[in-house]
Amino acid sequence: MHRRLVLGAAAAPAALAAPALAQTHNPEIRWRLTSSFPRNIDIIFGGAENMARRVALLTDNRFQIRCFPAGEIVPGFQVLDAVQAGTLECGQTSTLFYTGKEPSFAFFSNLPFGLTTRQMTAWMRHGGGKEAAAELYADYSIVGLAAGDTGVQMGGWFRREVKSVADLQGLKFRVSGYAGNMFQRMGASPTQIAPADIYPALERGAIDAAEFIGPYDDEKLGFVRVAPFYYAPGFWEASSRGVLMVNRRAWDALPAHYRAALELGASDLEVEMPSRYDDQNPKALRRLVAAGAQLRIWPREVMQAGWRAAHELYDETAAKDARFRRIYENWRAYRDEQYQWFRVAEHTYESFAFAAAAR
Amino acid sequence: MHRRLVLGAAAAPAALAAPALAQTHNPEIRWRLTSSFPRNIDIIFGGAENMARRVALLTDNRFQIRCFPAGEIVPGFQVLDAVQAGTLECGQTSTLFYTGKEPSFAFFSNLPFGLTTRQMTAWMRHGGGKEAAAELYADYSIVGLAAGDTGVQMGGWFRREVKSVADLQGLKFRVSGYAGNMFQRMGASPTQIAPADIYPALERGAIDAAEFIGPYDDEKLGFVRVAPFYYAPGFWEASSRGVLMVNRRAWDALPAHYRAALELGASDLEVEMPSRYDDQNPKALRRLVAAGAQLRIWPREVMQAGWRAAHELYDETAAKDARFRRIYENWRAYRDEQYQWFRVAEHTYESFAFAAAAR
Repeated sequence: MHRRLVLGAAAAPAALAAPALAQTHNPEIRWRLTSSFPRNIDIIFGGAENMARRVALLTDNRFQIRCFPAGEIVPGFQVLDAVQAGTLECGQTSTLFYTGKEPSFAFFSNLPFGLTTRQMTAWMRHGGGKEAAAELYADYSIVGLAAGDTGVQMGGWFRREVKSVADLQGLKFRVSGYAGNMFQRMGASPTQIAPADIYPALERGAIDAAEFIGPYDDEKLGFVRVAPFYYAPGFWEASSRGVLMVNRRAWDALPAHYRAALELGASDLEVEMPSRYDDQNPKALRRLVAAGAQLRIWPREVMQAGWRAAHELYDETAAKDARFRRIYENWRAYRDEQYQWFRVAEHTYESFAFAAAAR
Repeated sequence: MHRRLVLGAAAAPAALAAPALAQTHNPEIRWRLTSSFPRNIDIIFGGAENMARRVALLTDNRFQIRCFPAGEIVPGFQVLDAVQAGTLECGQTSTLFYTGKEPSFAFFSNLPFGLTTRQMTAWMRHGGGKEAAAELYADYSIVGLAAGDTGVQMGGWFRREVKSVADLQGLKFRVSGYAGNMFQRMGASPTQIAPADIYPALERGAIDAAEFIGPYDDEKLGFVRVAPFYYAPGFWEASSRGVLMVNRRAWDALPAHYRAALELGASDLEVEMPSRYDDQNPKALRRLVAAGAQLRIWPREVMQAGWRAAHELYDETAAKDARFRRIYENWRAYRDEQYQWFRVAEHTYESFAFAAAAR
C-alpha cells in the first residue's frame, strides 16, 4: 500500500486538472448498510452511523451510506450472507456470529483469553491478523474492515453467587459465540438467545445467568432486577472487535479515495467506540450498584478452569481445521509475547496507580 | 457537528452536479509539516508521513503535505511558534515541550500519574479534553488535532540500581517536560537534554540516568551500554499523546472535506502509532535484555513518593494558574473515575491472564 500511495501521489495531480475528469473521479454513490445490532445498542449501531457520516464528509457528501438496524432489512445474524449475496453493499457485524460456518471467524471478533483491545489492533495491523482475515473473507466474497471494539466485557449476571466451578455445573448460561464451547467443558449449559429475549428468559427462570456486553448496555436490558450478581471480567471477551463487511464487487467498483474514506471511517471506530464505552461504563456501573448489583470478581478457580478448557478447545479445533491451526499458531505466539510485554510497563503502572487513587 | 453533517448530506449533492463547481471544491493544496522528532524516531515521524499519505489518498492526491524532520526547517522545540507564525501550515509535536509557555499544555501530552492511552482518548473525545484543548490552542492561533500515542513509557536507564528514594537524592536525571518538577521534589536533579546528546552525557558521567520513550526507541540510542538498569513503568507518562498543530488561517481556508481528511488522518494515528509500538517493543525489550539490560520495577516507595510529589505540584500549579485549575478539576475527577472502572474488568482480566500465560 505504501508504494502504491507514493506512486499515486507523484502521478495523479496533473491528470486530475480537467474538471470533467474530476467529476468522473467523484461519482455519486448510495449504499445501504445492515447492522447485526438494534438501534438501542447505540454505541455500536451509532458507530455505523458515525462511520457513514464521516464517509459522507470526506467525500464532500458524494458517497452516502444509509444504515439500517438489525431486522429492518436483514436479520441480525445474517449480515454476512446478505453482504456476500450482494443484497446490500455492506454490513456492520461481529464475526463471532459466524463461527458455525467455520471456527476461524472467532479470531477476528473474540476468543476466550484473547488479545486486549490494543493488542488486537497490533495483531490485526502488524502481526498477521489483517492478512489472515483478508484470506478468510475472500472465500466469502467480502472485504472486511476492522470497525470498533468494546474493550474487556463484563462476565454477566447470575441469580446466585458463583463460588466455585461446582456452582457452574448444569447452570443454564446465555453466552455468545465460541465461548459457549468453553463453558460446556466447564460443566455449564451454554445457550444462545437474542438480546431482546434474554430478560424474559432470566425472569421466568428458563436460564440462570446471562452475559451481554458491559454496564452501559447491560443496564438497558434490566438484568439487575432478576440476577443481581454481576461478575468481572468477561474472560472470553478481552476485546470484541466489530467489522464492516463490504461486498467484493461493490468494493472493487469504488474509486480509491472512496475506499480510503471507508477504511478511515471504519478505523476511527477503533478509537471512537471503546472511548464512548470507557466514558459511559463507569457511570452506568455506579447506577447499577445503586440499583442493587452485587459486583463480584470471578473466583480464581473458575478462571483457571476457563483457561484450561479454552486451550484444550483450541488444540482440538486446530487438530480438525487447517486454517484455524495456521492462524492459531501465529495468534497464540503473538498473544503470549504481547501479554509478556504489557506486564512490564502497562500493568505495573496500572496496578500501582489504580490502587493509589482509590485510597 | 452531527447536525451540520446531516444538513450537509441533504443539501450538497444537487449543488455539486456541475463539474466546474466540483473542481472548485477539490482545489490542489500543498502544505509543509515540521516535526519535533528526527527521522530515526520512525514510528512517530513515520506517523506524520503516514498521516500525509492518507490525506493524499482521501483527497485523490489533491491535498499534499510534505513532512520535514526536526531541524531541517524549524528546530524541534519551536514547532508551535512556527505554526502560530504561519512559517509553515502545520507541525507534528507534543505539547509537553510548551509547558514553559503555560503549564496547561501538559494535559494534552502527559502528566505524572495521568490517563492511560485509552482513558486519554475517552477524556479528549467525551470528557471535556477536546474543548479545553481547543480553548488553549485558540490563544495561540492554532487548531490542534490529537495524533498518536506511545502507550505507557519506560522509566529510563540508570547507571546504578535505585533501591529507595534515598538513591534518587542529587541524581542527575534526564527527564522531559513537567515531570522534571516532580523529580525535583523527590530530591533528584532533573535536566532536559535533546535526544542526540543524551548518550554522550551518560557515557561521560555528566548525568547519572536518562529516560526517553520505550524499548524500541531507547535501543537505538544505545543506553544499555552505559546505564544498564532499566526501570518500569514511566509513571509520569502513562500515555503520551502527540498533536498535529495547524495554523488557524490555513485551517479556515480548507474545504470541509479536506479538514475531515486531516482529522481522520490524524485520528488514525491514535491507533496506528500505539499498535506499532506495541508490535515492536516486546522484540526490542528481548534484544535489550540479551544485550545486558537489567529490567527492574520501581520500588513501591519511589512510586509513592512520586504520587505525593505530583499531586502537591498539581495543587500548587492550580493555585497560581486559573486555566490549569479549571482543567485539572475536570481531569482529575475523570481520571479517578476511569481508574476505578478499569480496575473492574480490564485490570482483573489482565492480572489473571498475563500471569497465566507466563506459567
